Amino acid sequence: MQASMTTIEDIRRAAERIQPYAHRTPVLTCASLDRMTGAQLYLKCENLQKVGAFKFRGACNAVFSLSDREAEHGVATHSSGNHAQALALAARLRGIPAYIVMPSNAPAVKKAAVAGYGGQITYCEPTQQAREHTLQGILAETGATFIHPYEDRRVIAGQGTAALELLADTPGLDVVMAPVGGGGLLSGTAIAVKALAPACQVVAAEPELADDAHRSLQAGRILPSISPQTIADGLLTSLGENTFPIIQSLVSQIITVSEAAIITGMRVVWERAKLLIEPSAAVPIGALMENKVDFSGLRIGVILSGGNVDLDSLPWMD
Amino acid sequence: MQASMTTIEDIRRAAERIQPYAHRTPVLTCASLDRMTGAQLYLKCENLQKVGAFKFRGACNAVFSLSDREAEHGVATHSSGNHAQALALAARLRGIPAYIVMPSNAPAVKKAAVAGYGGQITYCEPTQQAREHTLQGILAETGATFIHPYEDRRVIAGQGTAALELLADTPGLDVVMAPVGGGGLLSGTAIAVKALAPACQVVAAEPELADDAHRSLQAGRILPSISPQTIADGLLTSLGENTFPIIQSLVSQIITVSEAAIITGMRVVWERAKLLIEPSAAVPIGALMENKVDFSGLRIGVILSGGNVDLDSLPWMD
Repeated sequence: MQASMTTIEDIRRAAERIQPYAHRTPVLTCASLDRMTGAQLYLKCENLQKVGAFKFRGACNAVFSLSDREAEHGVATHSSGNHAQALALAARLRGIPAYIVMPSNAPAVKKAAVAGYGGQITYCEPTQQAREHTLQGILAETGATFIHPYEDRRVIAGQGTAALELLADTPGLDVVMAPVGGGGLLSGTAIAVKALAPACQVVAAEPELADDAHRSLQAGRILPSISPQTIADGLLTSLGENTFPIIQSLVSQIITVSEAAIITGMRVVWERAKLLIEPSAAVPIGALMENKVDFSGLRIGVILSGGNVDLDSLPWMD
Repeated sequence: MQASMTTIEDIRRAAERIQPYAHRTPVLTCASLDRMTGAQLYLKCENLQKVGAFKFRGACNAVFSLSDREAEHGVATHSSGNHAQALALAARLRGIPAYIVMPSNAPAVKKAAVAGYGGQITYCEPTQQAREHTLQGILAETGATFIHPYEDRRVIAGQGTAALELLADTPGLDVVMAPVGGGGLLSGTAIAVKALAPACQVVAAEPELADDAHRSLQAGRILPSISPQTIADGLLTSLGENTFPIIQSLVSQIITVSEAAIITGMRVVWERAKLLIEPSAAVPIGALMENKVDFSGLRIGVILSGGNVDLDSLPWMD
């Protein structure tokens, strides 16, 4: 358990800190989606955020929270996903190095994206042990600050700024939905929502094939996923020691979603809302379309978490 | 030549009239696109408009401009594209019939879309003569009001409301760009821009393979396209008697764009801005990427005209 929990004040300060750098993303509605789900959806478009994902908020808050003395040694993380790109861009904006540890078998397009934002990549064997070991070596050598993708308190506060904006732009929400992987977005969202709109429920959506958060909440302790296989590749990680208790105390329920519903949800948002979202962002939409809970008639804020996809390989092709 | 030209006052009244029904679409920026084009782009997202295209603005203004007595007989048009869907939805919102004449060989997805918005479709042979004849029959039989896709003055005023919003949200633009087919969007845009920001240039973009507007402006008279073949299937129509003189007097230049640049522009907007746009909407982006004119460093408003695409058949597939 972390020393002290992230608060709404941390999220407010994060919002001020990242304001010069991050997009204030729009909240959009779509009559077709409303008709299909029976609810009123308010889509918080984090796919339109810098680097194409909410991850920029947390990384940016972490980087700009550092003292000048800390910052000059740079930041470091291990990630092959959106957090790596987000940290690289945030560091470039502050003019400091970002050291990114990536498995050697990461897709070329992800390597190129991180390098494109100026990240300094170190490749390692694709094992947890190699990753940790490589990262420790870099931290020892450079004095860089480690920014964990979701366990870092500054990251959680940054991710919470999306819900802060959503609530400010959309009064009277009954539910706010977000996908859950490591739980950084969900924790920050839950803290913001419960502080500002206590009656509003926070509901998470998770792939059936990576349902560690669902099982962990039922068991009352962290039960990690073992080699999860889902198209929602941003949600492969398991809850952490810091995110779990926040989620346990503030999140109403976690809905699990089939792979077919994730793909349907993704396609429907592309086709009807004209928004490119990645599979992870489609998980809450898939949950609504599968109708496992009755949200009909409710006003639901949905955080569309990101839009980084390979246009040459879409799930409804071939 | 039309009796009297559409004015900025017509556009202002249209904005009030459609406000309860149309989305005020966001204006978005994208650092990657700016880097690629060397300009500062402000994307007016009409792909996020109702029915996925700016066409809803003009159709909605036309339908809600009718007197109750006119309205009760319904509206009619011939179109297989976005105007047909837009008119069907606008009519449904007013609770009146929309009679749509479509060629029997129109794609099934377009027929379904018009029917989905409640349009009453009459099929005809795919010739200009059959289309006109079928429409005349319907008008005679029903007393419906014909709403031309771009020659109608109410339609032109409605299309101009996108630029009205763009200028209100984005001060100091040097250029506003729009694609040109029949010229409804371009005319309305030019009237709004020249009235509110006279120093701002209006620049159109047109497929090389459907370059009737470019040739017409050079010749000083309407030179229609003969069987144009371009992926930008919203821009196959030629300028009309009403749109041509507006464009002639207010538009600075028309840039022609290769098919390859249209596809590149479309893909880049999907990939980097995370916005689904149709090929027609990508034509101005293609013009900027081909660099046929030097707009470097300028603040450019770009109207992304629509986002209706078939996700099973994308131009970079196969």
